[in-house]
Amino acid sequence: MDEVFAVIMAGGSGTRFWPLSRSAWPKQFLALAGGNESLLQQTVRRLAGVVPSNRVIVVTSEQHAQATREQLPDLPPDNVLAEPQGRNTAPCVAWAAAHVSARSAKAVMAVLPADPHIGDEPAYRKVLQQAIEAARDGGMVTIGVTPTRPETGYGYIEVGEPLGAGVRRVQHFFEKPDLPRAQRFLADGNFLWNSGMFFFRADVVLGEFERQLPDIYAFANECRKRLKTGPDLEFVRASYAGLTSISIDHGIMEKAGDLRVVPGSFGWYDIGSWTTAYELAPKDAQKNAVRAEVSLVESEGCYVRGEPGKLIALIGVHDLVVVDTEDALLIMPRDRAQDVRRVVEDLKAKKAKHFL
Amino acid sequence: MDEVFAVIMAGGSGTRFWPLSRSAWPKQFLALAGGNESLLQQTVRRLAGVVPSNRVIVVTSEQHAQATREQLPDLPPDNVLAEPQGRNTAPCVAWAAAHVSARSAKAVMAVLPADPHIGDEPAYRKVLQQAIEAARDGGMVTIGVTPTRPETGYGYIEVGEPLGAGVRRVQHFFEKPDLPRAQRFLADGNFLWNSGMFFFRADVVLGEFERQLPDIYAFANECRKRLKTGPDLEFVRASYAGLTSISIDHGIMEKAGDLRVVPGSFGWYDIGSWTTAYELAPKDAQKNAVRAEVSLVESEGCYVRGEPGKLIALIGVHDLVVVDTEDALLIMPRDRAQDVRRVVEDLKAKKAKHFL
Repeated sequence: MDEVFAVIMAGGSGTRFWPLSRSAWPKQFLALAGGNESLLQQTVRRLAGVVPSNRVIVVTSEQHAQATREQLPDLPPDNVLAEPQGRNTAPCVAWAAAHVSARSAKAVMAVLPADPHIGDEPAYRKVLQQAIEAARDGGMVTIGVTPTRPETGYGYIEVGEPLGAGVRRVQHFFEKPDLPRAQRFLADGNFLWNSGMFFFRADVVLGEFERQLPDIYAFANECRKRLKTGPDLEFVRASYAGLTSISIDHGIMEKAGDLRVVPGSFGWYDIGSWTTAYELAPKDAQKNAVRAEVSLVESEGCYVRGEPGKLIALIGVHDLVVVDTEDALLIMPRDRAQDVRRVVEDLKAKKAKHFL
Repeated sequence: MDEVFAVIMAGGSGTRFWPLSRSAWPKQFLALAGGNESLLQQTVRRLAGVVPSNRVIVVTSEQHAQATREQLPDLPPDNVLAEPQGRNTAPCVAWAAAHVSARSAKAVMAVLPADPHIGDEPAYRKVLQQAIEAARDGGMVTIGVTPTRPETGYGYIEVGEPLGAGVRRVQHFFEKPDLPRAQRFLADGNFLWNSGMFFFRADVVLGEFERQLPDIYAFANECRKRLKTGPDLEFVRASYAGLTSISIDHGIMEKAGDLRVVPGSFGWYDIGSWTTAYELAPKDAQKNAVRAEVSLVESEGCYVRGEPGKLIALIGVHDLVVVDTEDALLIMPRDRAQDVRRVVEDLKAKKAKHFL
C-alpha cells in the first residue's frame, strides 16, 4: 500500500482575530477552541494513528516558518515549506505535491486547512481514513460535512449517486449562499458543507495541474526534479511570485474529473471570527465565555479573553467581545465581529503597523 | 494682619475611580480633570498668590504621605501630616489647627478638600480671598456655590440675611436632597451647593472643638503644647485611634455660632465618579472623551482612558466607560458608575487585594 502524506495549509494571515492574531502571529498559532493547543497543533495531533509526523508537511509563509517549526517540534524541520509569497492555495498544493512525489510518486495527499475545530475526533479520523481510501484508485476526493443549520458562511457541495461505502459523486460546488438558499440546501438534504479538505494521489493532482494550470505544473515538475538531488528553495524563491494566484478549489477541484465526496459528521467548525470563538467556548450560567481573570457584575453573554495577571471587570454589559492583549484591547458587540477588519484598516491608514 | 494657612484634606481612599485609583494610589493623586496635574497638585497650585506653599498643610494617611510629598515637592516635608488612622474630618481639622496654632494662634485656616475641579480659577481666588477676610473677625465661614442644575449628589446651604459685601448668614445645612427637593432648592434661589470648604481662625475653631467635641479638643491642645518644643507624632500615634470619628460638617460647622457663607460661581465640580470625569473631559464630534491611543469605529459617547503605548479599539459601542490600566480593565455603561464599588467588594471577597 502506498504511503499517505498530510499537507497542512497554514498560510493564513487573517485579521479577523485581531488583536490576538497579528501579522507576526496569525490565527493558526492561537488556542481559539479551548485548551492550550493552538489550532495548528490540534490539526497535527488529530492525525495521530493516520499519518505519522515525518509525513506531515506544513506549507506556511517565510515569516511564519520559524514559529511553525517551534509549535511542531516533532516534525522534521524540512517538512515545513516556507512560501516566499502568498499565491493562494493552488501553487501551495502543487509545491507540496512535488515534495510528496519526490518521496513517493503515488502517495495519497490529505490536504487540510490548519485551523478548523473538530469536536468529535474519533469520528473525524474514521472519515479521514475513508477519504484516503477513496483517493487510492485515482479519484479526487473531498470531505463534506452534514449541515446542522442554514449556515451562510460556508460553501456547499451537492452530492450525486453513491460510489461505494460512504462515498458519493460530487454533483456541484456552491459558493456561500444567502439565507433563503442555505435554508433550501438544508431542507433538501442533498447538500453538504465544503470542509476544504481534499484527498488525491500526488501523481493524480499533478496530472490535473498539467491539464488545468500548466504554469503551476511546470513549476511543480521542476521542483520535483531538483528535489531528487538537492533543495528546491532557490528555484522556488525565483519563480513563486510569477505563478497564477488561484485557489485549489477554483483552479483544480471544480473542473477535475471523478470528483468524490465522503460525507461525515464530526463536530466540524470553521472558527472564522470572535463570534464563532464565543459559540465554541464553554460558558458560565450567565452565558459568559471567559478566558481571563474577571470580576463580572450583572453581565451576560460576553466573550472575555485576557492575559494572565490582568483583571477584567465588567459591570452591566451584555453580548460584548472583550479581547485584551498586552498592547491592544478590542471591545465590540458580539454581532459586530465582521467589522474587526475596519480597525485593522484604520491602523494601516494611520501607519500604526506595530499594532498589526 | 495675621497669617493665612491652607489645610488640604487628602485622606481619601475612595474606590469610585477603580481601577485607576487604588488603595495605594487614591483619587487625589490622579489627573482626572484634563491635563497632567493631579487633583491634589491642582488644588495646591490654585492657591498661588493667596497662600504661600510653606503655609500649605496637607493631611493624609501614613500610607499616602510619601506620595503626597513627592507630588508636592515645593511643600516643606513637615507640612504633610500623616494620620495613623482615618477618623473622618473633625480630628484631621483639629490636628491641623494645633499645627497652625503653634505657629500663629490667630491665623485664618482655609480648610479645603483635595479633589474638586474648578473651572474658573481667577473667580475662585477672588471668592477665596473674600472667605478668608470674612473669617478674620472670628466668624465660621463656608463657600457656597451657586447651583446651575438640580443636583442630587451635593449637600445644600440655605442662605440668610446679608452680613456685608459678598457674605451672607448661613440659615441651614441640608444633606443631599432627592430630585423634587433639589428642583425646589434650585427654583427657590436661596440655596447654594455646599463646597466643603471652611474658613476660620485657629483659635476660633479650637474654641468650637472645646465646646462641641472636648475629646478632640484635648487631643489638639496637647499637640499644640508639644509642638512648642518638638514633634507631636508619637503622641498622635498613641491617641488618634481613640478620638471621636465624625465629620467637621456634623461635628462642628452645623452647631457653630456665627456661620457665614460666601456665595460664588467658579466652575466648581465635585469629581465623584467616572460619569463626572466624562462630563468634565473634552469630547470629540462623536462625544467620545478619549485619553488613550484609540481606533474608534461607529462608537459614541464613550469615556476611554488607557496607558501610553496601548491601543484601545471600539467597534459599534456607545456610552461605555473603558478604563484600562496595566493590571486591570473596567468596562461598564456610563450610567453604572455607582456600581464600581461592587467590583471592589467582589475583589475584597475574593481576597484579590493586589487589584485594590
